[in-house]
Amino acid sequence: MTDPTTLSASEAAARVAAGKLSATALAEAMLDRIAAREPVVRAFTHLDPTLMRQQAASVDAAIKAGRKPRLAGLFLGVKDVLDTWDQPSEYGSPIWAGHRPKSDASCVALARRAGAVLAKTVTTEFATRRPGPTTNPHNPGHTPGGSSSGSAAGVGAGMLHLAFATQTAGSIIRPAAFCGVVGFKPSWGTLQRIGMKVMSESLDTIGLMGRSVADVALGMTALTGLDHGPARPGKPPRLALILGPTAHLAAPETLALMDRVVEAARAKGATVTPVELGEPFKEALALHPHVMNMESAEALGWELDHARDGLSPILNERMSWAQGEPHAKLAEGRAAFAAAQAAFAAAVAGYDAVLTPSAPGEAPAGIAATGEPHFNTLWTLLHTPAVTVPAGTGPKGLPLGAQIVAPRGQDLAALTWAEWLHEAIHA
Amino acid sequence: MTDPTTLSASEAAARVAAGKLSATALAEAMLDRIAAREPVVRAFTHLDPTLMRQQAASVDAAIKAGRKPRLAGLFLGVKDVLDTWDQPSEYGSPIWAGHRPKSDASCVALARRAGAVLAKTVTTEFATRRPGPTTNPHNPGHTPGGSSSGSAAGVGAGMLHLAFATQTAGSIIRPAAFCGVVGFKPSWGTLQRIGMKVMSESLDTIGLMGRSVADVALGMTALTGLDHGPARPGKPPRLALILGPTAHLAAPETLALMDRVVEAARAKGATVTPVELGEPFKEALALHPHVMNMESAEALGWELDHARDGLSPILNERMSWAQGEPHAKLAEGRAAFAAAQAAFAAAVAGYDAVLTPSAPGEAPAGIAATGEPHFNTLWTLLHTPAVTVPAGTGPKGLPLGAQIVAPRGQDLAALTWAEWLHEAIHA
Repeated sequence: MTDPTTLSASEAAARVAAGKLSATALAEAMLDRIAAREPVVRAFTHLDPTLMRQQAASVDAAIKAGRKPRLAGLFLGVKDVLDTWDQPSEYGSPIWAGHRPKSDASCVALARRAGAVLAKTVTTEFATRRPGPTTNPHNPGHTPGGSSSGSAAGVGAGMLHLAFATQTAGSIIRPAAFCGVVGFKPSWGTLQRIGMKVMSESLDTIGLMGRSVADVALGMTALTGLDHGPARPGKPPRLALILGPTAHLAAPETLALMDRVVEAARAKGATVTPVELGEPFKEALALHPHVMNMESAEALGWELDHARDGLSPILNERMSWAQGEPHAKLAEGRAAFAAAQAAFAAAVAGYDAVLTPSAPGEAPAGIAATGEPHFNTLWTLLHTPAVTVPAGTGPKGLPLGAQIVAPRGQDLAALTWAEWLHEAIHA
Repeated sequence: MTDPTTLSASEAAARVAAGKLSATALAEAMLDRIAAREPVVRAFTHLDPTLMRQQAASVDAAIKAGRKPRLAGLFLGVKDVLDTWDQPSEYGSPIWAGHRPKSDASCVALARRAGAVLAKTVTTEFATRRPGPTTNPHNPGHTPGGSSSGSAAGVGAGMLHLAFATQTAGSIIRPAAFCGVVGFKPSWGTLQRIGMKVMSESLDTIGLMGRSVADVALGMTALTGLDHGPARPGKPPRLALILGPTAHLAAPETLALMDRVVEAARAKGATVTPVELGEPFKEALALHPHVMNMESAEALGWELDHARDGLSPILNERMSWAQGEPHAKLAEGRAAFAAAQAAFAAAVAGYDAVLTPSAPGEAPAGIAATGEPHFNTLWTLLHTPAVTVPAGTGPKGLPLGAQIVAPRGQDLAALTWAEWLHEAIHA
């Protein structure tokens, strides 16, 4: 008999919903896998096997009662900036240690309703810089990336089928690439942030990680009720190759990767055309630190005034910087974002999608820092859907990712071309 | 000596900051006024004189220590969909009775930092339809409007200098008009919604009410750090008169009001030109119920799955409707909103601001319902700044308002022209 932990999310959920595999049996197998990997990977802030078995049993009961939940029995990690009524929600901060919210975040409630089995995953401090204890599932001497560290590592280690992640700069796409998994940042606003510890309303985006594009698409379809494919395109894509304003920050392995990916895409019939982005995009990108940190300094208003000693030195310093900047910079930044968002569709008119790096390079050594969001921030502020797919390894044998971006609202297209690209790379 | 409760917010805060009036003395006078009016008006869900005296004392201490908080000692109502760490936050729902959040909403933290003295004001159930006990301060036989019922009535009764309010359809502008106060809905996203019980991310907007445009502008300047005026314009405005797709729902007193207001504006040199809005605006407006209620059904995911019996019949019915609609309608509605938002600046190019009714008419009789948002919903989904100013009374002697709208981001212009209009009307 197949090891149920190796089934794709789609296969596992279909078997559970059809009564061919009980959610309970799947849970036991997944808990075994977690027992084997978690001591080194350290992906979870809270994992309660008893609670997960209860959740699995209630999924089995629902199926016996005739329901067919779309994520039946899947292990879904919930980044610990999202509230859960039945598990601690600590936001990666000692200020919130032991916090038990009364209700679920809206996306968590949707996942629960779809039959997922939930545990909480490590976030950096308030999804900013200070890392948690998580290691890269491919090499514990390296960071898994962040801020969605536990979600990426948990999926990468096979301990989760899916996981919620959030991105303010590069917190979904970068860790997913570092951990060799698929990361999806939907169009901004697709998954509402009710019950999330929001740090920047202009930027924060909730997304999903999984082992494949199909698994992530299954999750998004279940959560939104809208078909997320991936579709089977009738012809290869016209890709805009955009290294963007941070092209000089790409490591050699990333430049080599992009060459390989472009070659693979062209070999499968894609056109790939380098595209330069104009001034509005550079201006918006330059103001990202102001919008992010000045909004965060408001978002953390209570913490700054009542529990400032509980912030890490790095976050404290950032907040002091933000509080000292002129208020006009925030309005200026928001206006620059709006201008760039309005200009983006025209900038990539005639292309099906954008091809761009997922991260500067492999996951850096050590777990004291989570790497840099250089190839993510622009797509975050543009509110576009973005997908990273595994695309081979770098010089240290660690995963690399390639990123597909589409205009806002074209989430199905983004996932479809990401799946196409993944197949082209691995053909 | 002047009764300190009759001072404008600007005068009161300036006197307190200058040490000419203690926050404690102001608080005692305001508490006396509350004691006189609250038994009939019923604006508050939680009002703790001891706590308010402590807050006032700490403002006095800060001023003695050399600080000059901009809202020093002002009584500021916090609509009870906004979290407060030191007061219950119950969202107008028995499901959340007695709830004590750990932290403040971000806008509440900013107000506290600026020296405001806080109490919680009545909201309808989750800022939707089921009213609270509040009465109209001008006639207790009439509704104060909603959902920001307590904020509008509390300011209208002189029990508050300022109050936070929120709008998903017409919940700031309508109650402000009904209660004869100034209501301001800033550009969407100006005041972040962290710590608010958000019902619809696409729509929910936090704003402010006060006794005058200048008072509201003071509050917005203090909260954002950006000058909100109102400025003294060098010449009269070019106004676009827009009754909009719901023009047929205006009561006779509203049509007569608009005639009077137009005449007053023209008498002061304004040009007033009727403008018709095109299809994108009608389409977006038609989809507002879908976006609002389908997003709310996600936002209340935990309540629907764990505490549905605690919802009112009217909200329960709405949520059932939303859960039964095709998921594609939500995406369609969001796209229609984006199209209308993108089209708006061009639709009013050549005008300084829009003049439009604030509500269908006077506050309806009874407190079992809060009136209709017919002249508010379009401006909510367009994300534009909107201001209602008192503009005389209707046949029953209840207040009427006139509304000024400006393109998104032009908040200072909206407040400036609202003040200009108010002066023109009352010249």
